[in-house]
Amino acid sequence: MHKVAVIGGDGIGPEIIESGKTVLDAAGEKFGFDIEWTGFDIGADRYLATGELLTEEDLKELEKFQAIYFGAIGDDRVKPGILEKGILLNLRFYFDQYINLRPIRMLAGVDTPLANKRPEDIDFVVVRENTEDFYVGIGSRLKGHEKKVLEVKRDLYSVKFGLDVETDSDELAYQIGVISREGASRVISYAFDMAQSREKKVTSVDKANVLSDIYGLWRDVFLETAAKYPGTTHEFTFVDAITMWFVKNPEWFDVVVTPNMFGDIITDLGAMIQGGLGLAPGGNINPDGTSMFEPIHGSAPKYKGQNVANPLATIWAGSMLLEHLGEKDAADRVLQGIEASIRERVVTKDMGGSASTSGVGDWIARWINNS
Amino acid sequence: MHKVAVIGGDGIGPEIIESGKTVLDAAGEKFGFDIEWTGFDIGADRYLATGELLTEEDLKELEKFQAIYFGAIGDDRVKPGILEKGILLNLRFYFDQYINLRPIRMLAGVDTPLANKRPEDIDFVVVRENTEDFYVGIGSRLKGHEKKVLEVKRDLYSVKFGLDVETDSDELAYQIGVISREGASRVISYAFDMAQSREKKVTSVDKANVLSDIYGLWRDVFLETAAKYPGTTHEFTFVDAITMWFVKNPEWFDVVVTPNMFGDIITDLGAMIQGGLGLAPGGNINPDGTSMFEPIHGSAPKYKGQNVANPLATIWAGSMLLEHLGEKDAADRVLQGIEASIRERVVTKDMGGSASTSGVGDWIARWINNS
Ligand SMILES: CC(C)[C@H](C(=O)O)[C@@H](O)C(=O)O
Ligand SMILES: CC(C)[C@H](C(=O)O)[C@@H](O)C(=O)O
Repeated sequence: MHKVAVIGGDGIGPEIIESGKTVLDAAGEKFGFDIEWTGFDIGADRYLATGELLTEEDLKELEKFQAIYFGAIGDDRVKPGILEKGILLNLRFYFDQYINLRPIRMLAGVDTPLANKRPEDIDFVVVRENTEDFYVGIGSRLKGHEKKVLEVKRDLYSVKFGLDVETDSDELAYQIGVISREGASRVISYAFDMAQSREKKVTSVDKANVLSDIYGLWRDVFLETAAKYPGTTHEFTFVDAITMWFVKNPEWFDVVVTPNMFGDIITDLGAMIQGGLGLAPGGNINPDGTSMFEPIHGSAPKYKGQNVANPLATIWAGSMLLEHLGEKDAADRVLQGIEASIRERVVTKDMGGSASTSGVGDWIARWINNS
Repeated sequence: MHKVAVIGGDGIGPEIIESGKTVLDAAGEKFGFDIEWTGFDIGADRYLATGELLTEEDLKELEKFQAIYFGAIGDDRVKPGILEKGILLNLRFYFDQYINLRPIRMLAGVDTPLANKRPEDIDFVVVRENTEDFYVGIGSRLKGHEKKVLEVKRDLYSVKFGLDVETDSDELAYQIGVISREGASRVISYAFDMAQSREKKVTSVDKANVLSDIYGLWRDVFLETAAKYPGTTHEFTFVDAITMWFVKNPEWFDVVVTPNMFGDIITDLGAMIQGGLGLAPGGNINPDGTSMFEPIHGSAPKYKGQNVANPLATIWAGSMLLEHLGEKDAADRVLQGIEASIRERVVTKDMGGSASTSGVGDWIARWINNS
């Protein structure tokens, strides 16, 4: 019996999560385990009604679970940033989910916008750091002069900035990013470990030629870590350059490890080359704590309640969730179910099919049943 | 008579610039003007010999020119960042070249890695802010406790950060980005002005949902500026999302305006979709001062001196330079020459041809002569 927390969230979130649960339940039945789902009412509706994003109580409750199955957040009635920071990033940080694992893999039968690329050309993993960098969210807007204290608290460390800022600009904004040796080290080590069971190649992403302080430290830690894995190839790329190679030569990559913000950018690009956001899952992982699995796309408010959203990214995230729970065989079967649905063209409109959100989930659940 | 400063720089820089000069001279002959070229010895060799990157004297001399024709800098013997910051970024900042103009346009006969996209689908302009954001290059690495003063000086304004930082991390690095109302305003206005002679659509790039301070200000200024152009369509995209649309729907874009760092990333991606870095030019523009034109690719040290590098990006940058000098007809003719060389397959190896760097330049110069 596995206990999993569920946050459907906003927009299409609840629908795609329902579809995912149906598939995971079927996998449980097939492989002899039960999943007990516990839903949490978290998202825009609650925020608009009560002003609450994530309460202490929510966090204390969620902490009891090994995994969270997360739909999507984001709503047109709420200013950009409120829900993202107050819910999604807050969860990633609170549970110290320092690895954001995003497979970039083109499944058979999927269309890519790239010319002449086949599934075997697009199969790598991005390991995105998930707690630091410019995602710490500290900064300010000022006119004239301002004194301010900004603080970042993490499980590993904390840092306090006493700031005394003066400008003759009409209005000025600043933003501070932070990278720590510990923070870089653990995610880079994870990437090298992961490469051991793959093709033993790790590519680092940075912009150390311009943002030399934070990415200089990142580079140093990357080199020190690489030295501990003598049989593994390692290389650096600048973030601008890697966007080119994703499009031109995706077959070069095996494991890509990246600071948080660049990871955000390149995994959306990665999602597109593997066939679109409808197919891109992610895991926010703390190997010793509560991890969270989600499609990397957003809540697409305009499709809410229409039963038309593509649930495959969510179902794939469910497969990652099962693997995380130790149910490797079930996880593999779910992915095979996704491949079967694509092969048989039981897919939603965005993929050229006519199936509904629930229809895809039901079909894959049955396929697992009969498999 | 136009006076133009020339910085060949490192690696393939001097060769591609020679090729560009040949073409621009031919255009001058055809359209009845002379260009007086004044070369500057700036780059890795000089740095390694004398320790000098850009001297006060260099800057005072360069200031006398309306335009600089720039090859590339970067050398394996020098740590990443030294030449980039000490030369390229220093020039951009010193001359307050606040607009980095990068056309993303697929010429007829060029291959794109995208499936099903034709030249008419890929034709937009990126207006990249070029003096602010994380490119101000301030930050630090520390253990324990540190007091520091960091300063940014620009023509428009200056800002001074008094910092008192304390951490229990093993080692921590931080990086500060800055956006000012004036800085955002002038580049966003430039983009809207440019859109008036195009399709009247401006797309803004940011990540205001996470880096809310700097990109929140950027958004506000974008909205305020948009309000002054009621007949022009405006829209926001998040930087992660726009990388997807570049690949999937490049035909959506007309003028894209972006903060500096995201501009760096998306224009490399843009270069790739338009046919590769060998074809992507850029202008660093100060409408009232010294502007600088360059290919957006780097110095490719391993091809140095082999006469094999693709000069088309540099020649195209030369066309932008001519337009900047008011020689619109000559500029157009140079671009037609580039298109002719592609049509006739007089191109370098990277584009599937067998011509040399100088061979391409000579051919286009002759074509202009005979045109
Ligand atoms: C919604 C947003 C805060 C988030 C991020 O930037 O990490 C999303 O883009 C993602 O990639 O998961
Ligand atoms: C060389 C580097 C500093 C530069 C930049 O980041 O601006 C380059 O990538 C560019 O885009 O012109």
